[in-house]
Amino acid sequence: MSWNSFGRVFRFTTWGESHGPAIGAVIDGCPPGLSLSEADIQPWLDKRRPGQSRFTTQRQEPDQVRILSGVFEGRTTGTPISLVIDNVDQRSKDYSEVAQAYRPGHADYAYDAKYGFRDYRGGGRSSARETAARVAAGAVARLVIPEVSIRAWVSEVGGDAAEALDAAEIDRNPFFCPDAAAAERWEKLIDNARKAGSSLGAIVTCEANGVPAGWGAPLYAKLDSELAAAAMSINAVKGVEIGDGFAAARLRGEENADRMRPSENRDSPHFLSNHAGGIAGGISTGQPVRLRVAFKPTSSILTPVETITRSGETAEIATKGRHDPCVGIRGAPVVEAMMALVLADQKLLHRAQCG
Amino acid sequence: MSWNSFGRVFRFTTWGESHGPAIGAVIDGCPPGLSLSEADIQPWLDKRRPGQSRFTTQRQEPDQVRILSGVFEGRTTGTPISLVIDNVDQRSKDYSEVAQAYRPGHADYAYDAKYGFRDYRGGGRSSARETAARVAAGAVARLVIPEVSIRAWVSEVGGDAAEALDAAEIDRNPFFCPDAAAAERWEKLIDNARKAGSSLGAIVTCEANGVPAGWGAPLYAKLDSELAAAAMSINAVKGVEIGDGFAAARLRGEENADRMRPSENRDSPHFLSNHAGGIAGGISTGQPVRLRVAFKPTSSILTPVETITRSGETAEIATKGRHDPCVGIRGAPVVEAMMALVLADQKLLHRAQCG
Amino acid sequence: MSWNSFGRVFRFTTWGESHGPAIGAVIDGCPPGLSLSEADIQPWLDKRRPGQSRFTTQRQEPDQVRILSGVFEGRTTGTPISLVIDNVDQRSKDYSEVAQAYRPGHADYAYDAKYGFRDYRGGGRSSARETAARVAAGAVARLVIPEVSIRAWVSEVGGDAAEALDAAEIDRNPFFCPDAAAAERWEKLIDNARKAGSSLGAIVTCEANGVPAGWGAPLYAKLDSELAAAAMSINAVKGVEIGDGFAAARLRGEENADRMRPSENRDSPHFLSNHAGGIAGGISTGQPVRLRVAFKPTSSILTPVETITRSGETAEIATKGRHDPCVGIRGAPVVEAMMALVLADQKLLHRAQCG
Amino acid sequence: MSWNSFGRVFRFTTWGESHGPAIGAVIDGCPPGLSLSEADIQPWLDKRRPGQSRFTTQRQEPDQVRILSGVFEGRTTGTPISLVIDNVDQRSKDYSEVAQAYRPGHADYAYDAKYGFRDYRGGGRSSARETAARVAAGAVARLVIPEVSIRAWVSEVGGDAAEALDAAEIDRNPFFCPDAAAAERWEKLIDNARKAGSSLGAIVTCEANGVPAGWGAPLYAKLDSELAAAAMSINAVKGVEIGDGFAAARLRGEENADRMRPSENRDSPHFLSNHAGGIAGGISTGQPVRLRVAFKPTSSILTPVETITRSGETAEIATKGRHDPCVGIRGAPVVEAMMALVLADQKLLHRAQCG
Repeated sequence: MSWNSFGRVFRFTTWGESHGPAIGAVIDGCPPGLSLSEADIQPWLDKRRPGQSRFTTQRQEPDQVRILSGVFEGRTTGTPISLVIDNVDQRSKDYSEVAQAYRPGHADYAYDAKYGFRDYRGGGRSSARETAARVAAGAVARLVIPEVSIRAWVSEVGGDAAEALDAAEIDRNPFFCPDAAAAERWEKLIDNARKAGSSLGAIVTCEANGVPAGWGAPLYAKLDSELAAAAMSINAVKGVEIGDGFAAARLRGEENADRMRPSENRDSPHFLSNHAGGIAGGISTGQPVRLRVAFKPTSSILTPVETITRSGETAEIATKGRHDPCVGIRGAPVVEAMMALVLADQKLLHRAQCG
Repeated sequence: MSWNSFGRVFRFTTWGESHGPAIGAVIDGCPPGLSLSEADIQPWLDKRRPGQSRFTTQRQEPDQVRILSGVFEGRTTGTPISLVIDNVDQRSKDYSEVAQAYRPGHADYAYDAKYGFRDYRGGGRSSARETAARVAAGAVARLVIPEVSIRAWVSEVGGDAAEALDAAEIDRNPFFCPDAAAAERWEKLIDNARKAGSSLGAIVTCEANGVPAGWGAPLYAKLDSELAAAAMSINAVKGVEIGDGFAAARLRGEENADRMRPSENRDSPHFLSNHAGGIAGGISTGQPVRLRVAFKPTSSILTPVETITRSGETAEIATKGRHDPCVGIRGAPVVEAMMALVLADQKLLHRAQCG
Repeated sequence: MSWNSFGRVFRFTTWGESHGPAIGAVIDGCPPGLSLSEADIQPWLDKRRPGQSRFTTQRQEPDQVRILSGVFEGRTTGTPISLVIDNVDQRSKDYSEVAQAYRPGHADYAYDAKYGFRDYRGGGRSSARETAARVAAGAVARLVIPEVSIRAWVSEVGGDAAEALDAAEIDRNPFFCPDAAAAERWEKLIDNARKAGSSLGAIVTCEANGVPAGWGAPLYAKLDSELAAAAMSINAVKGVEIGDGFAAARLRGEENADRMRPSENRDSPHFLSNHAGGIAGGISTGQPVRLRVAFKPTSSILTPVETITRSGETAEIATKGRHDPCVGIRGAPVVEAMMALVLADQKLLHRAQCG
Repeated sequence: MSWNSFGRVFRFTTWGESHGPAIGAVIDGCPPGLSLSEADIQPWLDKRRPGQSRFTTQRQEPDQVRILSGVFEGRTTGTPISLVIDNVDQRSKDYSEVAQAYRPGHADYAYDAKYGFRDYRGGGRSSARETAARVAAGAVARLVIPEVSIRAWVSEVGGDAAEALDAAEIDRNPFFCPDAAAAERWEKLIDNARKAGSSLGAIVTCEANGVPAGWGAPLYAKLDSELAAAAMSINAVKGVEIGDGFAAARLRGEENADRMRPSENRDSPHFLSNHAGGIAGGISTGQPVRLRVAFKPTSSILTPVETITRSGETAEIATKGRHDPCVGIRGAPVVEAMMALVLADQKLLHRAQCG
């Protein structure tokens, strides 16, 4: 079953802890013959990489990926692709206090309850550092679905929503914000939160264009079900919406109906709206696939909070160390990667069953 | 991989179409020695059963379950449990128009795009009728987790939220509404929608009490990830939240932190709040596991909407036949069932790895 | 994971006990649009059906299959296909003694040790009756691989090997024996064993022609690995060989090498021999895929044998009831079915990864 | 589904090619709290390591394993364990000819037919070098089943069978031969084959003692079915037997019956024989689990054999480079590892379902 694997035919497994020697991913089921080198992966890792602005953790990780298998003379061979990223900037001394007390909002207590003990250095396996391995795997997934373009952006920080949706703007600010005015506001919001020893939540929106009708399948491997599982597996995520999501629960049937008209392309009708987020009955409709993901505020905060120790004594803990004041921001490249991973898998699955 | 199966160790597979002779589920991996008969399953099916009030479809299905295997002398044997529910009130004549035109919001077009054709009678496999099989399987799952009690209710209909949360009220009205005043309002809301040939969305909340700390596992089989996949696999669901969900994205770190205090039970600290919905790092914390699920309005409406035919001509379609004006209502027992199925599976998985 | 499922994309799950009301299979992942009715399945069930000669159990089961889902207007829809076969000739009274004492060679003791109790009627889930469900599923699998023709025959009974290999002969005798002279000898052998209250083992050979090069994949889902698992999952099987099997261990490298020559068909070289049984590196080579399967003698014999009771007392047991004197014979259609099921799955998997 | 993974709860994935920078394995689902360091793995790798005598390939690989994740302060954490073994003695120049012509008996042609091209250096992914990763994973699996002791030996080389079964002898000769006299004969046999540019097959026997009754499960995840898949996934394996295997097909029912007598230990009856190889109905009986595996002769031989080139021309090929004259010998530690991996998985699965 594999707790640390995802996907069915295009399947990846990640391993590694925040303060171990390295993290990595093994991709199994990648089609053969795709052109692949580290240069295809590195740019996506660089987008997620920490330490690039004062709005993310100051941990300096170059996140250089190495391909150890599955590629020969520049092309994928169809055998497992092993990706490794060395950890170079661990500072384990920061975490001594965490070894003894549970940080509220973190996995500390749950891991101890489950496993009896835990690697407390930087959160161990529960650290968002693992998402670098997803981003690397996602870069390979993108090669499997050249017909699809995927774009994620941060649509809300600390309750303040972006209004404009200017794709060109997304990469111009450190927040993946598609609205220049909002980006300015967020800069202040995040600075204030950071200085106050607090943190903020965020909402990430992700859209995939070019997904043909027919990917996904009833009933327990629906495309939306896979996307929900993928998104909810990311650290700090607490909510997922497809298309209108919770807002759809407030529409009337005739408002929510995505009406159709004939188009020149018979395979792809003209839809008058996309409340459904490009998925009906668990199967893509040919419209853009749209996903919204809610990230809670970073649990690691300098503000001291009441908690207990491993031995059950009362305590107070302030999480020092280096942390993102708003984890949702660096969540954007991770959501993109998960979208790519799900779609690559679904493309291959569709091909398996329907030729 | 199985598109129509769910779960890893406690695993079920469903089959059947709205207007075929029967629907059913096969449960694999159920522990041996549990007392089980049809009488353990039937009450849960009766809660979901259609035709019990004017607020649900008038299709009359007794939904009598039969156990065809896996039980001997009243106890589960550890081998597959086959459950069958006959369809008795199909009226296929109602669906002739649907064969030719695509109903917006339905899976019609997507199924055709994927499979080349579809069983158009009552939506075929995409009908919510399949959820009866889930409810039956969920009844068996409940026997695996006697330490857990699960309760789902409808917390919002057509944008009108229940305010009170009175558990005793839930079964006193046809809406699984925990607020008597809201139930009265919803009666009018739904009646009006039905008479107007329209439909309404709803939000279902589900809570599991008694889940011990330690179920679930990082990273791609997190308890919340499994719940999200389970919920999103239900017909008409467009959004899922764990704990505070999207609202958490608007909290600050110190607001969202679920502070802990020592309790008399060393295995179970006293949490001062439950923003996390009982899950941290993908693992249960011992608090109530809380899930919220958004259902879109029923796509089958009498109001005619613009669409296209199979051959690509423009058309207008009004979905006659018998339908729920608000599918979310009967979604409550289904969400409960999925919660039970996920938790039963996670309990066994935890036992596998951690003894 | 599913203990009672097999296959990855074309996946089936079986359920049912020897003396329950019915047995069945659910097939998930079947491609859509294949022409399918009960008439496509019944002939294969009829070949395996008991009670057709004095050389098989006298239990009279018509083995009429019903398709309950997944087919619409005569074609597969791509959704799960539920197959049910009613049990009609159970005689549970025959098994009272078995409830208390363990039959050597049977699963009785192992089931009790695992599950704490067991359905002792006719062996319950461990009965070869389950293989009818495999044969039904296998009939559907055949439709997925029309390019392949599969033929199994009994090549040895009680140590007496068939010498001729006359395909036309196989269906002319009740032993699936390809050698008329051997069939005559086997008739006497089996009659004698039956009259002596004894039983015989057998070896089944199965060959699939038309399998193109390229099906299967390294390393843990090799085609030969899948076939070995499939064959070993059949009741009473104790050995599996691909190609020359154990005899290959006695060849020298240059003897075992399947030399190749150019052929007119560039995609399919001319092989001078087929020691490998059509599989190299876990992948088909385009040669016939050849499998040999060893069946132990039927464990149910009239000759009394020493054993113990459930409470640990010494006992002697003679298995009355109705049994095949040589289970391997009816194993031939089952091996054929498993070959079809594995190849259908591998075809779809190859299509998934390699297009 | 994962082509390169094995196991269900205790699950491992291997990656790497013969001449890539490294090979490795990721283990998922290992119970937490087990004491583990490289020193627990290295001795098993050393047994399989090449270049230790003139009877194995002269490739010099230190096979030093590194643990990159899943262990903290000397104990397994329950998260994925990443194992890496660097390749240090690749000599890719040896394989230039192989790039153009297909070696009979090798995966060359099949890989090309499947993937369109292949990593021809040392066989790439199809090299037996991958088995080092299995042996490393198997060493971890052993820690999960301390109650079990596993021993494999070579029971036959080139048709010459060992007669004595002296456990102490197995590690005293370079053939894992339990019979000192046979070991002397094999030395000559293998030397002669090597000098003649030929190669030999072998049979490996493996026995697991201490397996309690109750591991394994019907019907498609039977213990014997899992072992057959595991064994057949090893390079060069063409046959698998459980217990008496093919010889059982020549026994009569009363000969094959493993009679039982009461023993002092009520949980474990006294069996008078073990024809079944410790497995009945797919479930362990408490007797030793016995497996026999047939290895074909090494396909890489110096004797030139007829073949074709990639472009379909006739050719002759003699495989130079460094090869084992009898791959079956180093197969013994690999079979042991696979036995350990299957049993660890089955133990956890049994615990999942049956507590």
